[in-house]
Amino acid sequence: MTDLKNYIETHKELFIEDLFTLLRIQSVSSKSENKPDMLKCAERWKELLFEAGCDLAELHTTNGAPVVYGEKIISNNAPTILVYGHYDVMPVEPLELWKTPPFEPTIMDERIYCRGANDDKGQAFMHAKAFEYMLKTNQLKCNLKFMIEGEEEVGSKNLYLFCEANKEKLNADVIVVSDTSMIATDTPSITVGLRGLTYLEVEITGPNRDLHSGLFGGAVANPINILCKMVASITDEKNRITIPNFYDDVLSVSKEERALMAKAPFDEKEYRKAIDVDELCGEEGFTPMEHVGIRPSFDLCGIWGGYTGEGTKTVLPSKAFAKLSMRIVPNQDPDKIAQLFKKHFESIAPKCVKVKVTPHHGGNAYVSPIDMPAYKAAEEAFQETYGKKPIPTRSGGSIPIIAGFDKILNTKSLLIGFGLEADAIHSPNESYRLDHLFKGIETIAWFYKYFGEKK
Amino acid sequence: MTDLKNYIETHKELFIEDLFTLLRIQSVSSKSENKPDMLKCAERWKELLFEAGCDLAELHTTNGAPVVYGEKIISNNAPTILVYGHYDVMPVEPLELWKTPPFEPTIMDERIYCRGANDDKGQAFMHAKAFEYMLKTNQLKCNLKFMIEGEEEVGSKNLYLFCEANKEKLNADVIVVSDTSMIATDTPSITVGLRGLTYLEVEITGPNRDLHSGLFGGAVANPINILCKMVASITDEKNRITIPNFYDDVLSVSKEERALMAKAPFDEKEYRKAIDVDELCGEEGFTPMEHVGIRPSFDLCGIWGGYTGEGTKTVLPSKAFAKLSMRIVPNQDPDKIAQLFKKHFESIAPKCVKVKVTPHHGGNAYVSPIDMPAYKAAEEAFQETYGKKPIPTRSGGSIPIIAGFDKILNTKSLLIGFGLEADAIHSPNESYRLDHLFKGIETIAWFYKYFGEKK
Repeated sequence: MTDLKNYIETHKELFIEDLFTLLRIQSVSSKSENKPDMLKCAERWKELLFEAGCDLAELHTTNGAPVVYGEKIISNNAPTILVYGHYDVMPVEPLELWKTPPFEPTIMDERIYCRGANDDKGQAFMHAKAFEYMLKTNQLKCNLKFMIEGEEEVGSKNLYLFCEANKEKLNADVIVVSDTSMIATDTPSITVGLRGLTYLEVEITGPNRDLHSGLFGGAVANPINILCKMVASITDEKNRITIPNFYDDVLSVSKEERALMAKAPFDEKEYRKAIDVDELCGEEGFTPMEHVGIRPSFDLCGIWGGYTGEGTKTVLPSKAFAKLSMRIVPNQDPDKIAQLFKKHFESIAPKCVKVKVTPHHGGNAYVSPIDMPAYKAAEEAFQETYGKKPIPTRSGGSIPIIAGFDKILNTKSLLIGFGLEADAIHSPNESYRLDHLFKGIETIAWFYKYFGEKK
Repeated sequence: MTDLKNYIETHKELFIEDLFTLLRIQSVSSKSENKPDMLKCAERWKELLFEAGCDLAELHTTNGAPVVYGEKIISNNAPTILVYGHYDVMPVEPLELWKTPPFEPTIMDERIYCRGANDDKGQAFMHAKAFEYMLKTNQLKCNLKFMIEGEEEVGSKNLYLFCEANKEKLNADVIVVSDTSMIATDTPSITVGLRGLTYLEVEITGPNRDLHSGLFGGAVANPINILCKMVASITDEKNRITIPNFYDDVLSVSKEERALMAKAPFDEKEYRKAIDVDELCGEEGFTPMEHVGIRPSFDLCGIWGGYTGEGTKTVLPSKAFAKLSMRIVPNQDPDKIAQLFKKHFESIAPKCVKVKVTPHHGGNAYVSPIDMPAYKAAEEAFQETYGKKPIPTRSGGSIPIIAGFDKILNTKSLLIGFGLEADAIHSPNESYRLDHLFKGIETIAWFYKYFGEKK
């Protein structure tokens, strides 16, 4: 592997060019208008896999976006890695906050700015290029399978079915995913825990039409007022969730594990400064890293109702809406939580309004073992490129399908991500550092090498 | 006046044609893009006043929309009526709820559907035509002045200045306004009380950019969650407003007056049915008619933040916003209330967010005397056309400038409106009944006659 650094150095321009072809495709999975872009992006991935050296690369149609599958089988006796990634991205709104066009990759300050630059086009792309290097230089000692889906940001509904139907094809010793962050640019980490997710939408209806707020205000219930009261009551003054039985299945984390977690470098002042808030605001009795790592949360992801244009309009609106997500922790079931929320939310609605609760997608939390061979191989790989051992961390984010892999394919996942919090994934001006892109390719190549030598 | 009914009957088509020329102009005062339409609408009003017989009709430029002024002076000894109306209209959003194009007047079921059909193009228009009839038939025994402004829906800021600067020109015995509703189509009423208004906008800022709700949710304050908690706390479980000192200046209404109010016909079941709500929801200890007539209210007119598009987006947004109005009652000061709100709202904000409160327009409440000559003349006029005496009522709506007239011009206002609650003013599908349009012209002509004979 002596030529690895040199290989990356000489191929940088080509890597960027290839990645940009993916980034320019507006593959927003939650918007029906982008359906043709989903197919286009899947096709581009198929080409990339062939170009990288896969013997097989194909699209599998589903009821939603197609799944890209590719493979390079070295030997039936070699260990097998299944690389999982996704080519779909989050919506780009609010558009006015982007400094560069969201789907025109732009390099500034040694970063690629574009929706998907990190999540997950940039990160999944590193695997294609690490694989290409290993194969070209005749150093690949493991089989590689790629499964790149197009519905991760909307719950991977069809990938569950695809996995059920293709257990044999997807058979592997480990699933490797680069779709998470590391602690800091010089502090590599491996994500060993992910929160799950329950996402719902609520609609409150007051009067059957918008009313004049003067003629009716004070006598007729205002659905925005009521919606605010209802969602406000979902958390209490200790920032605990008030839904009955919500915490029933939450496993308490041992003192020992909490003490270990507390050892990860965390500077609250720096953390607050980076997002410009004077105070954090989490559940009483837990640290910020515990809030996102081991505790559930309740967030309004969107709210709207009434007049939101320029100037003023005195109106008592007919309807108000909110989109909300609950991050859940290991042992909580997303469907059960959705039902608990629905039952509770309907029960607290006053009779002066009508309530509609619509569950969107959900996913289980996941905890990854740190004693499996893949974890050890990853530790060695990071040691090669960063000169230090990665820290095992728990992320607050969710990749719902990871728990599904465990259940359906009976295969554990290894989460080696190279993002940073500053990459602003899901936000305007998402970006990915060029040095992380190249160091990621380097680390992944080392990982393939060490994993090929295990088993 | 024997030919009045016949005159209206034979001129119906012409009246509708003239009114439609006003309705087609998109004079939305709160939107800067509609500025050219404001001038166009003012010009059209000037023409209408000349056509009706004014000796003078002119536009007065202001820092905002122009004021249309017209007059017909019969004699310096005759009593003088100043007709006040407005040519601006409310925004038309949400557009998708309109059954007909909002600025293309359409007659269906004996109603004119259009933004402004009632409020206030249709209602102010009746005065021009009643005046035209009186003048043409040589029966006008009072002087008439017209002042039609273009900023009523945004607080009439420039009309206050116009009044200050034109006291002599606007000198009159009474100001007459048709911009309110009557109790029912066969139950005429005169509005003797109007609530005032304080309108504000609030902005809550959490982190300096949208964050991933998984990576940060639970540790970092979500501005939508916080906004909901803050506005939810503005009213208590008795639907009373919790802002300290808010009720200090509210005059309590006597048992006698409340008993009188209770005599107005009101069928709660019908009221609820018309707007399809199972329960009303007002301040404890008061009736629905009291809620809108004599008590203040707090309404969220608009709320927005985060992702509001199709499907899902897991985001912890940077900002959340709300527009809110408080209807106030006689003796409450809109600016004082705005300051009380601002102080309180800022004081309840947790340190994890930043709060910005921006007052928009406001206006005082108004109570109209029922012993003035104009009120008596109006009673007689309604008796002529409806065969019954009008009931004095208090409306929950606000016409902020009315209190200003009292203060600046030292002139009382008479509020004779011909709208119905079903006209859906400020809402999609605003409409005005054709029979109310014509009966309104008839009643106003009688009013001019009787008022000309008073003094």
